[in-house]
Amino acid sequence: MSQYQAALEPLRTLFAAMPPVAALGVEAVDFDGERLHLRAPLAANVNDKGSAFGGSLAALMTVAGWALLTLRLWQLGIEAEVYVADSSIRYLAPLHADLAASAWLDDARDWDGFVATLRERGRARLKVAAQVGLPEGGAASAMQARFVAFAKR
Amino acid sequence: MSQYQAALEPLRTLFAAMPPVAALGVEAVDFDGERLHLRAPLAANVNDKGSAFGGSLAALMTVAGWALLTLRLWQLGIEAEVYVADSSIRYLAPLHADLAASAWLDDARDWDGFVATLRERGRARLKVAAQVGLPEGGAASAMQARFVAFAKR
Repeated sequence: MSQYQAALEPLRTLFAAMPPVAALGVEAVDFDGERLHLRAPLAANVNDKGSAFGGSLAALMTVAGWALLTLRLWQLGIEAEVYVADSSIRYLAPLHADLAASAWLDDARDWDGFVATLRERGRARLKVAAQVGLPEGGAASAMQARFVAFAKR
Repeated sequence: MSQYQAALEPLRTLFAAMPPVAALGVEAVDFDGERLHLRAPLAANVNDKGSAFGGSLAALMTVAGWALLTLRLWQLGIEAEVYVADSSIRYLAPLHADLAASAWLDDARDWDGFVATLRERGRARLKVAAQVGLPEGGAASAMQARFVAFAKR
């Protein structure tokens, strides 16, 4: 098990302790150090039309972005409170399969500055991208969001 | 019971039939013909910090906008499939109470054109605004979104 895979265990514990995340069946699947992959079953996230509920897509991408930053900060030994600040979501195609989301830094070059600012000022913001894929390729939904982290004292 | 209140009953039936909406405890509270009010308990929507999970706020505002258009179309005897097309959400303040969301048309003057286009072309888009309030006043979170409706044949 890689250091990245091992980092998923405390994330799973956190997910299980967050009632809405548990209720939507959100699972941490994989992390390669840059991209975090989550899944959630269609059955727990279906709308009146048999496709994935837009609110579930939004929730899953939001938790993916939040979890990505939380994980990456843990890997540096930084405990921080991470909050979503704003997000912009496009719903591109109906999804009739389980929800597979991934999240990554919108611009990886921003990471070092984010960490330095968080360490110096106790607070920093970063842009994250996320999407939920379609089984046939392409995206069902895409999110751009900004998150803010507050260092725990 | 006003015509508006009566319109909440089929909405409640729909909510109960949508697993993620039921799991988050979303309830249709009030409709005055222009604003739809929904609620969801904090306990079912709490994050790791004891405040409302951002994904739940996004989901609740999304379902509020979707339900507003669905309700208003029902009142005209129009059965349509309503989908969220895109949304922009700002998270303004942490919420440590039950989630109370409202949704309304971003510009009420667009309604007649939306209905005319839907009837003529079988498809139309409309902007909706929604927010989740704070108990002390103001907003915990605000959404601007576009929805698209497809007339059922």
